[in-house]
Amino acid sequence: MNNESRIKALLFDVFGTVVDWRSGVARDVASFLSRHAVSVDTFEFADAWRRQYSPAMEEVRSGRRPFVRLDLLHMENLVKVLAEFGVNADSVPVQELAELNLAWHRLDPWPDSVEGLLRMKRRFIIAPLSNGNIRLMVDMAKRAALPWDAILGAEVVRAYKPTPRVYLDTVEILGLEPSDVCMVAAHNGDLAAARQCGLNTAFVVRPHEHGQGQQTDLKAEQDWDYVVGSLTELATQLGCPT
Amino acid sequence: MNNESRIKALLFDVFGTVVDWRSGVARDVASFLSRHAVSVDTFEFADAWRRQYSPAMEEVRSGRRPFVRLDLLHMENLVKVLAEFGVNADSVPVQELAELNLAWHRLDPWPDSVEGLLRMKRRFIIAPLSNGNIRLMVDMAKRAALPWDAILGAEVVRAYKPTPRVYLDTVEILGLEPSDVCMVAAHNGDLAAARQCGLNTAFVVRPHEHGQGQQTDLKAEQDWDYVVGSLTELATQLGCPT
Repeated sequence: MNNESRIKALLFDVFGTVVDWRSGVARDVASFLSRHAVSVDTFEFADAWRRQYSPAMEEVRSGRRPFVRLDLLHMENLVKVLAEFGVNADSVPVQELAELNLAWHRLDPWPDSVEGLLRMKRRFIIAPLSNGNIRLMVDMAKRAALPWDAILGAEVVRAYKPTPRVYLDTVEILGLEPSDVCMVAAHNGDLAAARQCGLNTAFVVRPHEHGQGQQTDLKAEQDWDYVVGSLTELATQLGCPT
Repeated sequence: MNNESRIKALLFDVFGTVVDWRSGVARDVASFLSRHAVSVDTFEFADAWRRQYSPAMEEVRSGRRPFVRLDLLHMENLVKVLAEFGVNADSVPVQELAELNLAWHRLDPWPDSVEGLLRMKRRFIIAPLSNGNIRLMVDMAKRAALPWDAILGAEVVRAYKPTPRVYLDTVEILGLEPSDVCMVAAHNGDLAAARQCGLNTAFVVRPHEHGQGQQTDLKAEQDWDYVVGSLTELATQLGCPT
């Protein structure tokens, strides 16, 4: 457990780990749905939109499609989800769809995220290792005051997690060895892929990422190097003063 | 000149524009040179090292060599410069060379840089568009408190300025049009290339980048959109409050 003396950089999953995507998307779709007389719960809509996330990236991961950034996948997924709920996207002004798609740029951090990141930034390089694209991460960070040292992740290496190359190429960009780096995520699958690549691992329990009835990622499924309930707790475990 | 209402992002050249590479490198080579009994002025050594910079990148720009990051070019150039001054790099421990090469990660900002960037960050996306690699820019920013929103530049797009693709691909990563972006540099050549790509341009006069006897880039060679003496003056011209 005492590998913090060796760790030089912390890489963070973002959607669900650092920010609460579900509440943010639900908030931002509300006025759109009422304007278009779609009678669906805003959280149900957010969940439906998010359900398209992994299958869309899988097209890229599998090699069936060249890399495209997440903003585009989110837009394509939005068109599908609107159809599910009876809205033909062709009937919506392009600018209104583009604005709605930016909901993913305007997500709020969990209450502990900013304080935890600020403490860890004083001792480590901190950067997102998210499937979100660079502009999305920049907009989110500026709005939410996430103090990243750099924006790393899928777009920089042009591949989507959990493809091993995403972790390995990012470590290489940092000029480090995998054992110098710790992946921080609320998702066991992300950490399993990072561990396969030799990175250290920190699991942050986020039991309400998917709402009150969440079934997945409620506990550590491997003996991750760190298991914490918040980013401030992780900062403490890593020896970062308040 | 009133295009600041349209500008959304500012991209900065770094070596010479934001930081004083010459003094920083001269400072960091001093103890090495005295340890190895090299009797050369530290500024002369810094200048000689920097003279290798453009030719080394030209190998990549011309396509004769695949993209490699600047840290590696700096190391190769260091070996050449040591030879010029009579030191066989093979006789120096690898770790000592690596440490010396990190001089480029430890450069001090010009006195106006941090304040100017902080003011501009409140209104614009600010990012380096430097030929320096990501880790170099991260180390420099952490040490000097440069408040970048993202680390963009050569390594992200795998090409060196002034290749047009560097400017255009970076604008595209930001999801913007070239006319939404302003390139900020102390070098007329960098701005000429950016303008060719449709970006706005801001010239920062840095008359001592090359020391007291500087001959180049002492004045604007085109009618750049902004011509200023400091990054705080640029912030003011762009309407960013103190």
